[in-house]
Amino acid sequence: MNNFIYQNPVKIVFGKGQIESLPALIPAGAKIMLTYGGGSIKKNGVYDRTIKALNDFDAIEFGGIEPNPSYETLMRAVQLAKSEKVNFLLAVGGGSVIDGTKFIAAAMKVEVDPWEILLGKIPVTEAVPIGTILTLPATGSEMNAGAVISKQATHEKYAFGSPLVMPQFSILEPEVCFSLPTRQIANGIVDSFVHVMEQYLTYPANAMVQDYYSESLLKTLIEVAPKVLAHPLNYDYCANYMWAATMALNGLIAVGVPQDWTTHMIGHELTALHGVDHAQTLAIVLPGVMDVKRDEKRDKLEQYAYRVWNIASGTSDERINEAINRTVAFFESTGIKTKLPDYRIGTETIDTIVQRFILRGTVLGEKRTTTPDQVRLILENRL
Amino acid sequence: MNNFIYQNPVKIVFGKGQIESLPALIPAGAKIMLTYGGGSIKKNGVYDRTIKALNDFDAIEFGGIEPNPSYETLMRAVQLAKSEKVNFLLAVGGGSVIDGTKFIAAAMKVEVDPWEILLGKIPVTEAVPIGTILTLPATGSEMNAGAVISKQATHEKYAFGSPLVMPQFSILEPEVCFSLPTRQIANGIVDSFVHVMEQYLTYPANAMVQDYYSESLLKTLIEVAPKVLAHPLNYDYCANYMWAATMALNGLIAVGVPQDWTTHMIGHELTALHGVDHAQTLAIVLPGVMDVKRDEKRDKLEQYAYRVWNIASGTSDERINEAINRTVAFFESTGIKTKLPDYRIGTETIDTIVQRFILRGTVLGEKRTTTPDQVRLILENRL
Repeated sequence: MNNFIYQNPVKIVFGKGQIESLPALIPAGAKIMLTYGGGSIKKNGVYDRTIKALNDFDAIEFGGIEPNPSYETLMRAVQLAKSEKVNFLLAVGGGSVIDGTKFIAAAMKVEVDPWEILLGKIPVTEAVPIGTILTLPATGSEMNAGAVISKQATHEKYAFGSPLVMPQFSILEPEVCFSLPTRQIANGIVDSFVHVMEQYLTYPANAMVQDYYSESLLKTLIEVAPKVLAHPLNYDYCANYMWAATMALNGLIAVGVPQDWTTHMIGHELTALHGVDHAQTLAIVLPGVMDVKRDEKRDKLEQYAYRVWNIASGTSDERINEAINRTVAFFESTGIKTKLPDYRIGTETIDTIVQRFILRGTVLGEKRTTTPDQVRLILENRL
Repeated sequence: MNNFIYQNPVKIVFGKGQIESLPALIPAGAKIMLTYGGGSIKKNGVYDRTIKALNDFDAIEFGGIEPNPSYETLMRAVQLAKSEKVNFLLAVGGGSVIDGTKFIAAAMKVEVDPWEILLGKIPVTEAVPIGTILTLPATGSEMNAGAVISKQATHEKYAFGSPLVMPQFSILEPEVCFSLPTRQIANGIVDSFVHVMEQYLTYPANAMVQDYYSESLLKTLIEVAPKVLAHPLNYDYCANYMWAATMALNGLIAVGVPQDWTTHMIGHELTALHGVDHAQTLAIVLPGVMDVKRDEKRDKLEQYAYRVWNIASGTSDERINEAINRTVAFFESTGIKTKLPDYRIGTETIDTIVQRFILRGTVLGEKRTTTPDQVRLILENRL
């Protein structure tokens, strides 16, 4: 096991009727900016309950944060929040709204162009405090320090992270799932699943708890997916899906072990170039990574096959093939397609992505061995 | 799943050579009191490394905190720390030293007799900040809010808890295991195992992640126990044992589910009356709880039998009997005996404990159905 430092102070407030506890969670006298997305919160009652709970606070609003939140939109929010002297940000939404709000929180405190934060040119040294009300379990952003932001002008997508943008609290009400479209639940399940895989499917690091915990989350998602999709009004199915999604990317399963993130890095390009849903890109790319990188990942692929899918017979490659097939079938069972042509994407896009990685000098993977040539093989595997 | 609030801000600093990072973890200018136990830290190098790392701080010492830390000893520490105007406590030791230091931290801030905190008569509203260097993986105290304190004068043992006494940081160096006596490692393994069982072996609460996580820790401990006992100088075995012990009682597996703690409550009496090691008392009592409470715990006992021990055949009672036998065999395999006569304890002690519970009106268990009469059955089961 590798050395590690782990600290996650986010307060999780989980269950029924928790939005009403907002007044006790936000500092008295705070000047709040409520951030949200396309307005679904106005249909499911979350907006009205939030506004009512904030009755004794001075609050303004910034709606319209889009999926794959854009620098351009968020900079308008930064301008508004600064001019209104906002000192607390309340993100009400899914990962995009929370990620975008993390960027606003950091950007409000820098003097230069905040895009420099995404480029890794300036560090985050200060941030406006954040609270969240999660409305879509998927990204884990409600309990971590990371965010992914896109620039519309250049079709680029970058991540940044800082403990300073971790939420002070996150309210998780499983009942928000009741009004989610099936596609968003499917996306959330696949997104969470691949988050775990990025931290698990590498090479053995003698980390027994981390491995078992990762497999716990994978098994939970596999078991709960058909149930939550078939019975979207079942509280316990939603609760288990929601808690698994949060635990999938709160840092705990990553301690002391290597991480990959190849699937995400390639997937980000598909979103940036074609607007494919984030989770869809992951469902496309992961099986290719499993196949092309099978030699480096063999030990963990065999462990995954056995412990998660009970695949015990056959040669090593047969077991790995079966594990890949089961993974693909699982993604497809949620309604998410896993091949590039399903999204009308062909070889030109592969060329573009490989060219981008060559230009940037990008080499991916837990051992930094996944060159642009291998990225080509991974994507060609998905044609 | 039940509603829950979860927040655990303890910073874990895990791995090799971490004591040397102390200066960056403690506030500059702090007046420190180093607390420790019987002096084993002076033999394994931890004391010297700690003193060296604290070179630039003003630090005093309080050694001699005993196993099952006593109110009497700790009150002397409170007096010293107050008179020396200490504003940071650094606990270097196992659960007893850390628990004791939590009590010191809270007691330093109250004007009345701090025993009132243990009796639940006054709340903790303030505490001196704490850091820890863990030298014995077992109690999980390094990453939680609880402590158990004994009063020598009356042979009583009580617990208290407050987020205010959670450590600011805990340094976990697996190499501290290298110099531990076998008996302490065995105790630590059994203690951690039973911590998980208290939070797991109740009734189903539709909490998939929590169940899988609990089973992850149980399986880790079962697998690692013979290895760490046979190869006490293996870093990875110690690291997995240490991390499992911490995760067993940091609150995470307890969220949204019922808890029992019957085994601990009865065990505390055996320690208070006969000075039996804490873990030994748990190894004695738990099999009795499993047997006597089998009807209320049947669903989880069957799940435990199947998922942890792969027991798949037989009637429900046969599978449960086998699971109890395996649990007893596991405890005994670490060298810890599981029957009262092994510790020369007989029926008189059972009478005394039952009488105490009757006088206090104690009713135990996740459903509050374990009356003093049932406590008698549980203990008689262990004769």
